[in-house]
Amino acid sequence: MPRTPLATIDPDLCCPSVLGAPLDEDEAAVLAHGFAAIADPVRLRLLSLLAAADAGEVCACDFVEPLGRSQPTVSHHLKVLTEAGLIEGDKRGRWVWYSIVPERLEALRTALAP
Amino acid sequence: MPRTPLATIDPDLCCPSVLGAPLDEDEAAVLAHGFAAIADPVRLRLLSLLAAADAGEVCACDFVEPLGRSQPTVSHHLKVLTEAGLIEGDKRGRWVWYSIVPERLEALRTALAP
Repeated sequence: MPRTPLATIDPDLCCPSVLGAPLDEDEAAVLAHGFAAIADPVRLRLLSLLAAADAGEVCACDFVEPLGRSQPTVSHHLKVLTEAGLIEGDKRGRWVWYSIVPERLEALRTALAP
Repeated sequence: MPRTPLATIDPDLCCPSVLGAPLDEDEAAVLAHGFAAIADPVRLRLLSLLAAADAGEVCACDFVEPLGRSQPTVSHHLKVLTEAGLIEGDKRGRWVWYSIVPERLEALRTALAP
């Protein structure tokens, strides 16, 4: 199974609609990888905290308390979302500040359009 | 982890937006369960075949050839999608005809709205 991150997909090709023409194997694999990245409650809550942040970004150190998860767990989920191209990090000093990549979420939403 | 099918969620409550207010644990669990149902290439291709079907429904026996998967594999994926409330089946004789439940896919799409 290819594990192509959404971030490496040509925007002109990404993402076909599930409800349009029948998907081929490759299209389905790319989309499934994107949906797998958000098919986790901690990662959905991470995204919602990022979306609600006043500055549009949150330090990796500031998820532990609202999520009630350890720093290694938070870091794991941030990595999965980053690899899927759904968030991006900016390293400053010893911490990374994360923000949402809206066009990647939009690509997944578009894939479910009628 | 609750495994509440989307189908059992009150439509007035379902589904909060990921990009709105921060999700609580329960909201995130319900949404993650829905996205997990479509985070699989075979299930995405099943949905796209159902969406493209002229009659809006497909016999469970007619997925094996286009998907290149065995009948037991097809049946497993149909079951996961049915339990998530994304498709529904109508038994006639020895086979079941499946169709999409559009409002359930729409609920997932809405959850990704800006």
